[in-house]
Amino acid sequence: MAETMKATLFIEPGRIALDDKPIPEVGANDALVRITTTTICGTDVHILKGEYPVEKGLTIGHEPVGVIEKLGANVHGYEEGERVIAGAICPSGHSFACLDGLHAQDGQSSPHGLKPMGGWRFGNTIDGTQAEYVLVPDAMANLARVPDGLTDEQVLMCPDIMSTGFAGAENAGIKIGDTVAVFAEGPIGLCATAGAKLKGATTIIGVDTVAERLDIAKRMGADHVIDFNKVDPVDEILRITDGRGVDVAIEALGLQQTFESCLRVLKPGGTLSSLGVYSGDLTLPLGAFNAGLGDNKIITSLCPGGKERMRRLMNVIESGRVDLEPLVTHRFKLDDIIEAYDLFSHQSDGVLKVAITP
Amino acid sequence: MAETMKATLFIEPGRIALDDKPIPEVGANDALVRITTTTICGTDVHILKGEYPVEKGLTIGHEPVGVIEKLGANVHGYEEGERVIAGAICPSGHSFACLDGLHAQDGQSSPHGLKPMGGWRFGNTIDGTQAEYVLVPDAMANLARVPDGLTDEQVLMCPDIMSTGFAGAENAGIKIGDTVAVFAEGPIGLCATAGAKLKGATTIIGVDTVAERLDIAKRMGADHVIDFNKVDPVDEILRITDGRGVDVAIEALGLQQTFESCLRVLKPGGTLSSLGVYSGDLTLPLGAFNAGLGDNKIITSLCPGGKERMRRLMNVIESGRVDLEPLVTHRFKLDDIIEAYDLFSHQSDGVLKVAITP
Amino acid sequence: MAETMKATLFIEPGRIALDDKPIPEVGANDALVRITTTTICGTDVHILKGEYPVEKGLTIGHEPVGVIEKLGANVHGYEEGERVIAGAICPSGHSFACLDGLHAQDGQSSPHGLKPMGGWRFGNTIDGTQAEYVLVPDAMANLARVPDGLTDEQVLMCPDIMSTGFAGAENAGIKIGDTVAVFAEGPIGLCATAGAKLKGATTIIGVDTVAERLDIAKRMGADHVIDFNKVDPVDEILRITDGRGVDVAIEALGLQQTFESCLRVLKPGGTLSSLGVYSGDLTLPLGAFNAGLGDNKIITSLCPGGKERMRRLMNVIESGRVDLEPLVTHRFKLDDIIEAYDLFSHQSDGVLKVAITP
Amino acid sequence: MAETMKATLFIEPGRIALDDKPIPEVGANDALVRITTTTICGTDVHILKGEYPVEKGLTIGHEPVGVIEKLGANVHGYEEGERVIAGAICPSGHSFACLDGLHAQDGQSSPHGLKPMGGWRFGNTIDGTQAEYVLVPDAMANLARVPDGLTDEQVLMCPDIMSTGFAGAENAGIKIGDTVAVFAEGPIGLCATAGAKLKGATTIIGVDTVAERLDIAKRMGADHVIDFNKVDPVDEILRITDGRGVDVAIEALGLQQTFESCLRVLKPGGTLSSLGVYSGDLTLPLGAFNAGLGDNKIITSLCPGGKERMRRLMNVIESGRVDLEPLVTHRFKLDDIIEAYDLFSHQSDGVLKVAITP
Repeated sequence: MAETMKATLFIEPGRIALDDKPIPEVGANDALVRITTTTICGTDVHILKGEYPVEKGLTIGHEPVGVIEKLGANVHGYEEGERVIAGAICPSGHSFACLDGLHAQDGQSSPHGLKPMGGWRFGNTIDGTQAEYVLVPDAMANLARVPDGLTDEQVLMCPDIMSTGFAGAENAGIKIGDTVAVFAEGPIGLCATAGAKLKGATTIIGVDTVAERLDIAKRMGADHVIDFNKVDPVDEILRITDGRGVDVAIEALGLQQTFESCLRVLKPGGTLSSLGVYSGDLTLPLGAFNAGLGDNKIITSLCPGGKERMRRLMNVIESGRVDLEPLVTHRFKLDDIIEAYDLFSHQSDGVLKVAITP
Repeated sequence: MAETMKATLFIEPGRIALDDKPIPEVGANDALVRITTTTICGTDVHILKGEYPVEKGLTIGHEPVGVIEKLGANVHGYEEGERVIAGAICPSGHSFACLDGLHAQDGQSSPHGLKPMGGWRFGNTIDGTQAEYVLVPDAMANLARVPDGLTDEQVLMCPDIMSTGFAGAENAGIKIGDTVAVFAEGPIGLCATAGAKLKGATTIIGVDTVAERLDIAKRMGADHVIDFNKVDPVDEILRITDGRGVDVAIEALGLQQTFESCLRVLKPGGTLSSLGVYSGDLTLPLGAFNAGLGDNKIITSLCPGGKERMRRLMNVIESGRVDLEPLVTHRFKLDDIIEAYDLFSHQSDGVLKVAITP
Repeated sequence: MAETMKATLFIEPGRIALDDKPIPEVGANDALVRITTTTICGTDVHILKGEYPVEKGLTIGHEPVGVIEKLGANVHGYEEGERVIAGAICPSGHSFACLDGLHAQDGQSSPHGLKPMGGWRFGNTIDGTQAEYVLVPDAMANLARVPDGLTDEQVLMCPDIMSTGFAGAENAGIKIGDTVAVFAEGPIGLCATAGAKLKGATTIIGVDTVAERLDIAKRMGADHVIDFNKVDPVDEILRITDGRGVDVAIEALGLQQTFESCLRVLKPGGTLSSLGVYSGDLTLPLGAFNAGLGDNKIITSLCPGGKERMRRLMNVIESGRVDLEPLVTHRFKLDDIIEAYDLFSHQSDGVLKVAITP
Repeated sequence: MAETMKATLFIEPGRIALDDKPIPEVGANDALVRITTTTICGTDVHILKGEYPVEKGLTIGHEPVGVIEKLGANVHGYEEGERVIAGAICPSGHSFACLDGLHAQDGQSSPHGLKPMGGWRFGNTIDGTQAEYVLVPDAMANLARVPDGLTDEQVLMCPDIMSTGFAGAENAGIKIGDTVAVFAEGPIGLCATAGAKLKGATTIIGVDTVAERLDIAKRMGADHVIDFNKVDPVDEILRITDGRGVDVAIEALGLQQTFESCLRVLKPGGTLSSLGVYSGDLTLPLGAFNAGLGDNKIITSLCPGGKERMRRLMNVIESGRVDLEPLVTHRFKLDDIIEAYDLFSHQSDGVLKVAITP
């Protein structure tokens, strides 16, 4: 085995680079995974732009599909050579937060203060997946075998956007017969649309401006689609629901406009399920928030991780209930990842998600 | 029986008056209740000031304790002369919202649009309780017998502030061993404090500026109290919790400052339970909202009503678990209600709640 | 309008008859519905055989599809001539149980003792639907308009078996990626299968002995089917799940054998969701019940009713998510209902459900 | 440090012995704890009698209070010399079951079949706590610091019976105002009583035959107590509840009689929360089980473990909400543990729980 590998490093705001880096040492509870496919997330673009700070020289990326190269001394139940994925969020399993069911907020109960998102480590607090190898921490909690017969691209969305999008539907408590609106239909929104259908929503309304995305939204389960450049989505949703409003509105963009539109289409007693990563303060308008008297809920969800979550999501794929391959629109070699970032960050050529293969 | 009664009428913004009004006709599903005790709520003060619009001439007030005077033709299971209460919120039981478990938002599913708070009728959309008589609609869903041995003042908080305050604790999903902060310790906050204790919170932190209120907060279950004129409550709560933050923060005042402080003391994964009636837009600061990535929830609750809710709350009183009589600090005759409003709206003389007796 | 109507009466154990009966008077909160289609349920066969006692002369049947003929004086929001359904269970909306969310157990909180199933009135405590007309009590809580474009047969399963079968999936708390076994695949089991799929189960295993039923089970969402005359279903389910067991097992037959098999395939922490109507004591074998230490749940569900439930179920049909028309295998005129009972009670000719039209 | 320690060993059915055993080696994820106080559980008596099989030579006991003697190489966040407890159930944190929220059933998802109770290791599958030292596996998930100021005896119930009893109340979904019956008032039942009060039950009915236990039940929160040698508890509970039945019945003995009595006092829609360890098949009588149509639930709970659970329970003790010291009725040296078993297994001298100190 070589001693160095190629990895995509954060250099400074506005600049990443593919460079050599030592292949990491494998600690007792770790596993070294050779990446066979990974992808780029909107969060990575925030990092590239310097909007979300990480250490210089960190390997970025958090969506691994690969093969176990080496197991730590304490890691049992796996074999080298097995195909695996791990979630973008790597819970330890043993923190106070994990044991309280808050896997993505692992670490929150530390005496070091109110630090959120403690479970997100790849490409945030430790080296990530846009490289030839990645070290998976707390491997026994995080490595999930890929069932035979599933391709890398079929499971590539499991680590992050499928888990995130589905969480938006799950945490909203969708019931059979619910009406759900999804703002907007990017990769996360498309997964939220599929998740809403899986939880029993029977009237799903997708909102976006890109015709191709609205088309895929229909394939994911949307019963109605709205191009909000052509009609006012709030008016249109009230029209579709006979003025009743929606049981659940899912925010999947991260802007005041979509957040507020979600509130405005919500029935009294309805739930706003927020998946967006916001970059500024949000306003809750008095009327849209019913002055606090509407029995409304606002729920935020960070991507659930851990091997059990991955197992379930791959089971969804294997069952044929949901097919996320249409989301992979472009493919690049790891050597060309700068080009892939360029395409993805400008949303050129109708890109939804890219597959990166070392 | 006389044909007219005294009632407290909304005249115009800034002015109410005690005047004569016909005793209402009793419809088939109604009950006429002779009021023996009622009270004034913060919402009534909003109405008086014109901040919440109601029709001119409406009888205000929504917290009835009384005696059944007359039952409608279809009302069974009760007898005239029985002592009863009804909730501030009167669900019909038969609306789509009620059958979906959203009793306070009764009416929301109508084709007439997104109208919240449909279950609040007394002193809002129909004549209220600050009068000699009140007509209780959908009586079979709303009349709750007062157990023998309980006084009017013991059950006077059940229709509104006890139900509201408890809902703040219940809807937040408090678990045994939770840490809960309550901003602030007015009547609703005090009931939320008692509710948090009843649901198993074992570290309850009450925040206010009035020493008497903080003293009562301790009697209701607060383990720590903070005078936020003396110390920064966010810093102090982080100190008390060793930087961990709280599982649940209950907003019981209705201001940006307290709402935002709730967010700032919340652990990742924690819940803000909002009970306040806001009078302007709210801001979710980016950091305090964890950019939408903290697995946080914001839950708003309107006072639950209906006879089953009232039965349960009176059972709490009867069991001795909670004693809300200390909240009744002043007593007035209905004839002196203008004076009572004056005292209550200025929060003079350490007033918490007033008892009004016709 | 005629003064009498044809109705299917319970005469004595083993005997029903189609006879004339006065068309009922319409009380203030009632609606008279002219039946256009109804059906026969397994419970009706229990009644016919005298296994479940009802009063002699009662009109049986509890699944109405029809047209509003006359509205009571207090019934608002409907018009005569509208096509409607009502659930088999007719909650009042205003009982303690209803207001506590237990609509099917309406009446349980009365001082008259522990009477279960209080919400089931049609063909049980009041005249039922196998007649030309039926009186719907508490009409405002129970009448649900049929959306334009849906046929009688499309919504015929909503009042009972669809609501019941779905409840088996809903109350079991099925999560995305769950494995669910359904014993057996009669009409209720088929609906439970469809419900499990709607709630996100991705490995569904249907168990029965009838090839046609197993075929329909696949159309409803079963990923695997087991003919338990050919293989041991417990062994086979453990094989399919790699020894893991199922998250949820749904009992839809009402026998010790299936109930016990459900327990035996349940993973530790798994849930048995019971829909069967049992006719004798059940045994919880020590091992299958994990001596009480398996963190298992046994949940029983009675058919949820009320207009909101019916609205949601018809929305499922309208969305095309589930098509239950294959369950209607035979059609009869009301005049031939004795013949229909004969076919249905003997499960002749591959019958699943019959449509009865006056 | 010595190389051997005293430990209580299972020899054969009917016989245990205090003998010498090597002090265990400390693996990378383990911690060695020097026991300062432990206790005997009913389950230990089952083991002694041979009713629950364990390996010969195993150290029994599963309730540790002690001091960290030595930490494994991978265990961070603790210091040697700290006072700690660990739960009777030691979840790994990283199993499929743990990551799915089923900590006590850790291991269930293994390919080795439907093995329940995988989280129970002390005195079951690994050496237990009735010894001078115990090795705590997966120490980072299980070691919980004892807050300053709490004595060993104050926290001695946390590892098992407090956690178990409280789970009986928590998993039953007790709501404010609920009526709860507890059969019977041994140590687990007494903790369930305290737990029911903590979750908001306001009418708690304790059933037992021992006057001293019923007295302590009142101190734990029982509003009514029933000596079932003097009156029929089913009749008496129906009398107390005006025929309404209870919302929740907690089984805390493990016999058909109490299990069945729980069913018979349950309201339609009510929940039986089972904590007993049964030693034979159970019967669900047709009527008591409402033929499966009562919307009833039967929930079984195994003792929740893990450091977060322990932290919460110690917080309950520290807050003064519940005082379990009255349950410690007798004290023994480890050298006299055979005598302690003799007293405890015969329930002599009014024993509730014994404290054992090495």
